[in-house]
Amino acid sequence: MPEKVPHIVVIGAGFAGLAACQALCKSPVKISLVDRQNHHVFQPLLYQVATAALSPADIAHPIRSIFRKQDNLQVYLGEAVKVNLPQKQVEFHSGSTSFDYLIIAAGATHSYFGRDDWRTEAPGLKSIDDATEIRKRILLAFEEAEYEGDLESRRAKLTFVIVGGGPTGVELAGALKEIAADTIVDDFRNIDTATARIILVQAGDRLLPSFHEKLSASAQQDLERMGVEVRLNSRVTEVDESGVKIGEEFLPAQNIFWAAGVKASPLGATLGVPVDNSGRVLVAPDFSVPGAPHVFVLGDMAALKDPKTGNPVPGVAPAATQAGQFVGRLLAREVTEATPPPRPTFHYFDKGSMATIGKAKAVAEIRSLRFRGFIAWCFWCFVHVAFLISYRSRVVVILSWIWNYLLSTRGARLITGKNMLSIKQFRETFPREGKQR
Amino acid sequence: MPEKVPHIVVIGAGFAGLAACQALCKSPVKISLVDRQNHHVFQPLLYQVATAALSPADIAHPIRSIFRKQDNLQVYLGEAVKVNLPQKQVEFHSGSTSFDYLIIAAGATHSYFGRDDWRTEAPGLKSIDDATEIRKRILLAFEEAEYEGDLESRRAKLTFVIVGGGPTGVELAGALKEIAADTIVDDFRNIDTATARIILVQAGDRLLPSFHEKLSASAQQDLERMGVEVRLNSRVTEVDESGVKIGEEFLPAQNIFWAAGVKASPLGATLGVPVDNSGRVLVAPDFSVPGAPHVFVLGDMAALKDPKTGNPVPGVAPAATQAGQFVGRLLAREVTEATPPPRPTFHYFDKGSMATIGKAKAVAEIRSLRFRGFIAWCFWCFVHVAFLISYRSRVVVILSWIWNYLLSTRGARLITGKNMLSIKQFRETFPREGKQR
Repeated sequence: MPEKVPHIVVIGAGFAGLAACQALCKSPVKISLVDRQNHHVFQPLLYQVATAALSPADIAHPIRSIFRKQDNLQVYLGEAVKVNLPQKQVEFHSGSTSFDYLIIAAGATHSYFGRDDWRTEAPGLKSIDDATEIRKRILLAFEEAEYEGDLESRRAKLTFVIVGGGPTGVELAGALKEIAADTIVDDFRNIDTATARIILVQAGDRLLPSFHEKLSASAQQDLERMGVEVRLNSRVTEVDESGVKIGEEFLPAQNIFWAAGVKASPLGATLGVPVDNSGRVLVAPDFSVPGAPHVFVLGDMAALKDPKTGNPVPGVAPAATQAGQFVGRLLAREVTEATPPPRPTFHYFDKGSMATIGKAKAVAEIRSLRFRGFIAWCFWCFVHVAFLISYRSRVVVILSWIWNYLLSTRGARLITGKNMLSIKQFRETFPREGKQR
Repeated sequence: MPEKVPHIVVIGAGFAGLAACQALCKSPVKISLVDRQNHHVFQPLLYQVATAALSPADIAHPIRSIFRKQDNLQVYLGEAVKVNLPQKQVEFHSGSTSFDYLIIAAGATHSYFGRDDWRTEAPGLKSIDDATEIRKRILLAFEEAEYEGDLESRRAKLTFVIVGGGPTGVELAGALKEIAADTIVDDFRNIDTATARIILVQAGDRLLPSFHEKLSASAQQDLERMGVEVRLNSRVTEVDESGVKIGEEFLPAQNIFWAAGVKASPLGATLGVPVDNSGRVLVAPDFSVPGAPHVFVLGDMAALKDPKTGNPVPGVAPAATQAGQFVGRLLAREVTEATPPPRPTFHYFDKGSMATIGKAKAVAEIRSLRFRGFIAWCFWCFVHVAFLISYRSRVVVILSWIWNYLLSTRGARLITGKNMLSIKQFRETFPREGKQR
């Protein structure tokens, strides 16, 4: 490598960051890829870790391992806290670095609409640690209900409220109902787990608002047939350890999961350029920051209207990947050509979207084609496996799904965490007589 | 089930507890099986979770799921703290229960020979949480070394000391060397991970003291050829965050893992009967507690000399399983026969023992037959897969091993845990030039 190649710093190894780095694999540049975690997470399957169908390692891959052969790239474990645009510097928790080009793709986190105090009671699902936390809460809820003598308390422990009716909320609700009504129904002696209430709360007037109305209706019908309670036009107005308030109605519930609203990483705001009210940077049509053409913001951190269609580029994995590829290729040209051509503008190629509801139940739309039921589900399985990063993950995930499909088991029902027992005190009352339905 | 069947409380769902419960599956009894965790762990493969070859769920199985079809059994999540022999009561963290029969199989933990303050710096390997903690430390050590500019500090970060030369110590040392010299060697840019020092410290004059001397020598030779430093007749006299003292020599080392000495669960001592200096209860030849024939202590908590051979029953999985079966069958007879026959005495059937050292390297002995190398390794793989509890685990473990064998990858290299970044501060110095060997 020559001495004076441009230094490209990439923050975040999500779909956008990975794609940008991979597009630059043969370029005469020096890439520093920084992430808070040592692994890339395949986020679309995170809910399957939260619901014990897959192990964390099945959908997470060490970043170093992905780039082991890419000699122009170096991986750093670290958290960026501030970008200093005029000095072309990024500051980390400790230390800092200068850059020639900067690609910021640090993703998004959950928005509690100003009520960040709800976070403890209503965790969201963005990382592997979130997923194992939710998994622990789900499994512990049934354990506690098994020992709980008081019927009202038991009912609260067996009540699960999922806030947000987008794909994550729908997928969580469906999987939870499957666990309660099928996977673990023979495992308990005192409680009938099938009586667990799963309530999906959606502020808008339909589920999956980014899908066609017919698919929204179909998803709702499927969920309701499975026994999930869907509440449309409903807002959660209070969350505490005893339950949630939906509108004016208080609902005792021990398990609340948050799948509503996202806000961009606070890193975007440190740029000092305009952001929208979700904290996303209003980028130019080439994803560059206005006034700083060598700095790009991608993925869930960027707000961009597709110049061709006028629609906002959605915050989904394929859009992040395409944005990463776009910027990576753009830079690959710029660093080699003496007088680079004018920059192209991004166009999102919408391959379609899909969401799974339960075993053999899903919805999918590809342009004007719409699918539901078993066909959509097969399609969903195929696409998600195809995009997993390693062959090993693909094989293990396929096997886990076959097991799950045929035997209704879930392979990863582990409650882990050092202080498991101190989290809640159980009433260990022995012995108890028969199952109370 | 008739109203007045005997209530059998089983504490611990390890190998002994499981086997006892399974032997009682058709008996007219009421079993309460209590464990601190919701899962049974296949301990012989725990080191593979610690070294990122397997996921926790591959070797851990929900206890409820194991016994879902056994109607006379109820699973409880709880921790027993005291046994009240005269009143036939067990006390838990909260609540208590009376029993007609009690089977105590709560296992063992690490003994730091009176230096429990070493636990933080030198974690042991007994549970899934221990394994993910060790995995995190191993992976973080390489991450930190990658950023460390100071050569001496870097050397300490790349020094791994394993205390104890039994099977766990040998297996950990071999796997660590494989990770450093093979799995991750292409993943880092600043450090040559193959230079990591792996030091195995054994107090006695040979490794694997429970094996034949020739196999001890063979294991040592294999490890040394791989590059592991074996120190025999050496004692760790001090442990702190900067390193270990081995005899009088101080060795700077950031990573210390404890695989020496065990002590029985403190529950045994609450019985008020004689225990040995590892805290194990001196049981009668039927595993009952002297003076309390309805109370049994099994597995790693029991000290028993085999009445036939005079040898102590070893603290290994097959011995625990056999003890559990023995006591389970004994009780199955006693609860059905009006005048039960005199109790039999236990005899341990030693099927042999084995330990793996590395890829295609192991030692095994079956009575007077001794194997080493590839054959022993195949045998080791076969036996360990055969005894896993679920078909799913077997398939996933076999696949993981094939991958590991063919591609030298390890599928579960995840650093997880909420406060990962605050554990250690990294020196993020960008950019750095080339690999320093």
